[in-house]
Amino acid sequence: MPLPNPQVQNLFQLAAAAPAEEVFEPLLQHPAARIERIVSCGQTTPPGEWYDQNEDEWVVLLQGQATLAYEDGTTAELGPGDYVFLPAHCKHRVMATSQQPPCIWLAVHLPPAVS
Amino acid sequence: MPLPNPQVQNLFQLAAAAPAEEVFEPLLQHPAARIERIVSCGQTTPPGEWYDQNEDEWVVLLQGQATLAYEDGTTAELGPGDYVFLPAHCKHRVMATSQQPPCIWLAVHLPPAVS
Repeated sequence: MPLPNPQVQNLFQLAAAAPAEEVFEPLLQHPAARIERIVSCGQTTPPGEWYDQNEDEWVVLLQGQATLAYEDGTTAELGPGDYVFLPAHCKHRVMATSQQPPCIWLAVHLPPAVS
Repeated sequence: MPLPNPQVQNLFQLAAAAPAEEVFEPLLQHPAARIERIVSCGQTTPPGEWYDQNEDEWVVLLQGQATLAYEDGTTAELGPGDYVFLPAHCKHRVMATSQQPPCIWLAVHLPPAVS
């Protein structure tokens, strides 16, 4: 019988000091998916830059407030528990992330369903 | 350019009335993974029964308090943000789930990494 990961770990535990840069932490490296925690604390995507990913991404904001922008000019205001699915090559930017409290994101990166 | 899911949805929104049974809601049906929200409100795995799944599962408790038990006799007390990885056929039971507040779980079901 395979054993579970014996160490229960926690998504909401943060370092005492706010990080100067966004922090990306792998939580699960699996052949089918990569699960990652992202902590943002006021950081945004630099003006004019876009995320244009080769993978699908399902992402939920678990703490904080954030604003996403899409290439078609629409935006999405996210609060705790809000989630979106971002297909591969759906260009998006992070326009705003709260500092108090820091934003805690949980992202599931998946191979593209449509290639 | 593929469009994102235009509707931001929320993990923490619950029905006004506590459900009599556990509620399993698919959040993403993807070829590589199935993401699901589970709401438990005092329900447990019936005595003597075990989950013995064909898939790997990464699961995080986002709200509430719960106790998992494994076949080797160990248990894990989970609170908000606590996550575990349950490989396929790692037999486990849910021994306890809080009613106030209800337990909100986020589960990512994945094909087994080791078959």
